[in-house]
Amino acid sequence: MQKFSSRFFIACLMYTTTSLAVAQAPAPADPLPSWNSNPTKSAIMAFVQRVTEPGTADFVPVPDRIATFDNDGTLWAEQPVYFQAQFAIDNVKDMAPDHPDWQTTEPYKSALAGDLKGVMATGKEGLVKLLLASHVGMTETQFNASVMDWLASAKHPTRDVPYPQMAYQPMLELLNYLRANDFDVYIVSGGGIDFMRVFAESVYGVPPENVVGSTAHATYEMRDGIPTIVKTGDLIQMNDNVEKPVAIYRHIGRRPIFAAGNSDGDMQMLEYTTIARNSEDTTPRLGILVHHDDAKREWAYDRVSAIGKLDQALDAAPQYGWHVISMEQDWRQIFPAEKN
Amino acid sequence: MQKFSSRFFIACLMYTTTSLAVAQAPAPADPLPSWNSNPTKSAIMAFVQRVTEPGTADFVPVPDRIATFDNDGTLWAEQPVYFQAQFAIDNVKDMAPDHPDWQTTEPYKSALAGDLKGVMATGKEGLVKLLLASHVGMTETQFNASVMDWLASAKHPTRDVPYPQMAYQPMLELLNYLRANDFDVYIVSGGGIDFMRVFAESVYGVPPENVVGSTAHATYEMRDGIPTIVKTGDLIQMNDNVEKPVAIYRHIGRRPIFAAGNSDGDMQMLEYTTIARNSEDTTPRLGILVHHDDAKREWAYDRVSAIGKLDQALDAAPQYGWHVISMEQDWRQIFPAEKN
Repeated sequence: MQKFSSRFFIACLMYTTTSLAVAQAPAPADPLPSWNSNPTKSAIMAFVQRVTEPGTADFVPVPDRIATFDNDGTLWAEQPVYFQAQFAIDNVKDMAPDHPDWQTTEPYKSALAGDLKGVMATGKEGLVKLLLASHVGMTETQFNASVMDWLASAKHPTRDVPYPQMAYQPMLELLNYLRANDFDVYIVSGGGIDFMRVFAESVYGVPPENVVGSTAHATYEMRDGIPTIVKTGDLIQMNDNVEKPVAIYRHIGRRPIFAAGNSDGDMQMLEYTTIARNSEDTTPRLGILVHHDDAKREWAYDRVSAIGKLDQALDAAPQYGWHVISMEQDWRQIFPAEKN
Repeated sequence: MQKFSSRFFIACLMYTTTSLAVAQAPAPADPLPSWNSNPTKSAIMAFVQRVTEPGTADFVPVPDRIATFDNDGTLWAEQPVYFQAQFAIDNVKDMAPDHPDWQTTEPYKSALAGDLKGVMATGKEGLVKLLLASHVGMTETQFNASVMDWLASAKHPTRDVPYPQMAYQPMLELLNYLRANDFDVYIVSGGGIDFMRVFAESVYGVPPENVVGSTAHATYEMRDGIPTIVKTGDLIQMNDNVEKPVAIYRHIGRRPIFAAGNSDGDMQMLEYTTIARNSEDTTPRLGILVHHDDAKREWAYDRVSAIGKLDQALDAAPQYGWHVISMEQDWRQIFPAEKN
């Protein structure tokens, strides 16, 4: 199934991803052509050069070159609502005929009415309910197919492009640049682990085993002699805030030397990655934060946003040496399909 | 810390592992010299040749060459008690002065008396209590150090060698053979994930991110300005039986094509790995079971053993085409330190 899924999915997305050119393109002279020549770009390239220079004190052996990236708002957009929430809303609409009570119960009621503001007003708890509704009772095969179908057909509500085209071109280049320097790149996101795994390899070049995300329970059973994983509706871990370093500890078992995020939910991951543990801990480390300050080409939001709130982490950045990326000033191009 | 730990640990174990020669040795003409030329060896080698032959229908692309191995009783011995249980017992003895109630409460009472039979009589529940006692309140740094200290000093009760020398030489060769053929090798064990990660790389060449095991809860906090993971005593997942395929789904997100175990606790992992899902699922798949039938060189136990019970899976093996390894007949040498 895995092989069939991947192939099918790649075929479905082929028309959307031709311009993404994740891993196949020959390395250009400038590995980060969509980044303006500003201090953040210089800091990233200087860091990579430091840790890969053999025979120096800053050299980091390949197995320890772990980089972790948040997904929503860091690798692709997250407005006007997390894309997985949109997936869940579309699912809830499909499932509504079997759930008449949803017409009068939040967050389903707002979801069915297409009222994103109403959905957001139900908070994280409401979002999680919607997300889990799109998992309950599904086998891994069914769930993967439902995500693939949605990705192949759904379009972003305001930009009218398939969601994979909402990935950030500069970040696709950064992922490639790190991998070309033998970094092991992971996604560590609040998004659902199984949701992201369906497209992470096609869109980002990140294989399933390198995707860490929020996790719902699953069971194993034999169905008509076929080993079957069945997803249940119980949330095991909401992979945000303090849970991100815990998830890194559990899943990877190594401490990253590079971490990228865009919200307060990424703050602890950046702390865990970049703050020296003692005086002997002199390994170079880099933390970066994407600041959404480009209302014209993307969206502008930070301290008071219900989605991707960036407040405490923005204040902490100077203290810990985290680099804040201005999308407006640091990124020449934002989305893959844009022409310069 | 990770780098320091690894280096320290490797130094500590150097004297025990010189004969393990995990990844450093030049590839011999026969990649499995400790295996007798019996049908099981032939089946393994034929399988690897089939899936790695480009241009054939059976060729499996590198990313899908996932192999999963149980640890206790499959990669190293598990008698007279799971080695992590011995670690926990030794820990409980060290901690006993702070826990006067343990003198009269099981499973601690038996553990303190050195009564392995009494410990085993408390069942899995008792074992888990002992194991968790050796985690509670420890930081990741402290826990790693405690495992390293124990491995460097403790010796097996009857064979009187350090525990890493209780690894099976034929399995070390098999791990290397699979990796040499671009398999991604994982450990999927009922043992504690954090316990195994301390030695899996040194002993088996399996990096931390490829170790999947039973998992206890942990929290993240800042302690004196230092990001700190703290282990709590709550078991999240006991990675055995039906939980093994679920853990593979969660952690790896790909279905293995090769799985090795030795007990009924591995049966579902072998099912999930080897049973075709539909008529299009024609990828070659291999399951192997280690049968402990060598009372002279190792131990002989199966259907009625409290440890590593092999009963249902042994009966199911012919039906599913799983290969049963006779340690007595198929393995020329069992432990690395043995001389032929």
